[in-house]
Amino acid sequence: MKLLGIDIGGTKTSVCVGNVHGEIMASKRIPTSCESIETYRRQLLELCFAVLEQAKVQPEALNAVGISAPGPLDVKRGVLIAPPNNPGWKDVPIVALVQKAFKAPVYLNNDANACALAELLFGRHKGVQNLVYLTFSTGMGGGIIANGELIQGRTDTGGEVGHHTLDPSGPLCGCGQRGCWEAYVGGRNVAEQLKRKIGEGNIKTAIVDKAGGIERIDMRALEAAAKEGDRFAMAEWDLFAERMAQGIGNLIMILNPDVVILGTMAIHAGEFVMAPIRDKLPKYAWEWPLKACKVEASQLGGKIGDLSALAVAMTELKSA
Amino acid sequence: MKLLGIDIGGTKTSVCVGNVHGEIMASKRIPTSCESIETYRRQLLELCFAVLEQAKVQPEALNAVGISAPGPLDVKRGVLIAPPNNPGWKDVPIVALVQKAFKAPVYLNNDANACALAELLFGRHKGVQNLVYLTFSTGMGGGIIANGELIQGRTDTGGEVGHHTLDPSGPLCGCGQRGCWEAYVGGRNVAEQLKRKIGEGNIKTAIVDKAGGIERIDMRALEAAAKEGDRFAMAEWDLFAERMAQGIGNLIMILNPDVVILGTMAIHAGEFVMAPIRDKLPKYAWEWPLKACKVEASQLGGKIGDLSALAVAMTELKSA
Repeated sequence: MKLLGIDIGGTKTSVCVGNVHGEIMASKRIPTSCESIETYRRQLLELCFAVLEQAKVQPEALNAVGISAPGPLDVKRGVLIAPPNNPGWKDVPIVALVQKAFKAPVYLNNDANACALAELLFGRHKGVQNLVYLTFSTGMGGGIIANGELIQGRTDTGGEVGHHTLDPSGPLCGCGQRGCWEAYVGGRNVAEQLKRKIGEGNIKTAIVDKAGGIERIDMRALEAAAKEGDRFAMAEWDLFAERMAQGIGNLIMILNPDVVILGTMAIHAGEFVMAPIRDKLPKYAWEWPLKACKVEASQLGGKIGDLSALAVAMTELKSA
Repeated sequence: MKLLGIDIGGTKTSVCVGNVHGEIMASKRIPTSCESIETYRRQLLELCFAVLEQAKVQPEALNAVGISAPGPLDVKRGVLIAPPNNPGWKDVPIVALVQKAFKAPVYLNNDANACALAELLFGRHKGVQNLVYLTFSTGMGGGIIANGELIQGRTDTGGEVGHHTLDPSGPLCGCGQRGCWEAYVGGRNVAEQLKRKIGEGNIKTAIVDKAGGIERIDMRALEAAAKEGDRFAMAEWDLFAERMAQGIGNLIMILNPDVVILGTMAIHAGEFVMAPIRDKLPKYAWEWPLKACKVEASQLGGKIGDLSALAVAMTELKSA
């Protein structure tokens, strides 16, 4: 079985050739062009054929193609509705565009769902029945596996856990709701709130130095300052962990999963973020479902993008 | 196919004989004895045989037996861990006790999960892929169907939606956590909070008259007073609908279901509770998953107990 995986990110697009065991034979990446879709399509297909050549796989030998991309998207129609980092793209029929070049079937899913599938198919807890994957970058996404199957939902928004409400009187979220989980833990929101607090309170904190200026504050600067024992940063890190624990606790009570896996920032922050989250979880989930649930950082590291696209390629293979 | 359904409630136990189409041939009920398990077992089996006789079905002709009971329970071991309204019962091996009397396999699940299965198998939205069932009595329970399958979870606490946190600084819940959904909308908690507010504030409200005294206040008294236009009751009813909307909105964002079905109090209160909940939902769920999701009262009415037990009896038949 030979699979082609296309991972479309906001800034980079990666293409790989791999198999159903998650073994990657070749992988290459280009910047995700913000130009016309026609230009992007040509660049993307050139990349696909270059990677296939590198892997010494004929296009006709492919069994399936998988595309992982940011939502919102329409899985059945194979359309990117409005990719957040490519404002010029609207209703892009990405599956049809790629399908023209290949005989093998082409599948699409959103990045967080694709990562959940990658963990299910290739991760440390491979084959587990109930799994939640959480990803944090500018925003926050999730993918849920229940009874061994992805919760795609009625309108492909299953697993949009970042927009369940942690506190109805909380801060405004970019989505228009108030007190969403993402409003507390999404990278953009955390950074905005830090800038405001530091600016308004005229607070001396190492976060500003770590970032190289107040306007450049991000999660990494917060993490670095907290690690060095900066008091303000440590308190903010603790708040972040508290909100992470509430959201994860909610998912444990609702879904009773075997494992909750955290990607992105949890991969590099490791125990520095996982330990305080675990400490706080007993406030938000009952003892026995909590004891039965592993809460840990993803072990798939930098390969998760390619693996997530391969996992999407396996959409039909799994149920076969 | 002939099925026996046993619905063990806190106060009543109902037994029915029915089929896979949800047709009930006979049904009888007795009070749920709080005496010894041996006494209860004898009464229960007498009831089973009486109902079988009434339905003119031989015990040997049964294909399966289903038991619906309050949690916490262990589905695989077939044990009631600690039924909340029967404090003398602990780790009751109910499946083994019933299995001794029948050749047909005996299955167990908790009442809220069983109701979700009943809606999936016999309800207005029969066969839908993604369904949430919510039940309110003294507490609050839920059952979730995703991709046509019940989310049982790792420790049989899948669907314990009543204990996800709506507000971390909210009122203490009976479970020990703070700000659980149940702490806001569970019958016992609503009643306690009303008694306190009315007593401490010395508030004149028709709720007290409807209940027949402050100590007897319950959800029904609140509903009756709100319907008559009592100002305090209307404001409290509105708060109740607000918290219902937040919880349901959270489930819509996480699960993206086709339908959310409300049982118990929603069945009699009908549009008087459903309309304000629907009005408030856009604050807590995105437009497109919300538009795609029906939020309505159960249509199964008084038969839901018997039907839920029959649905549990079909545990293996469904996947066959």
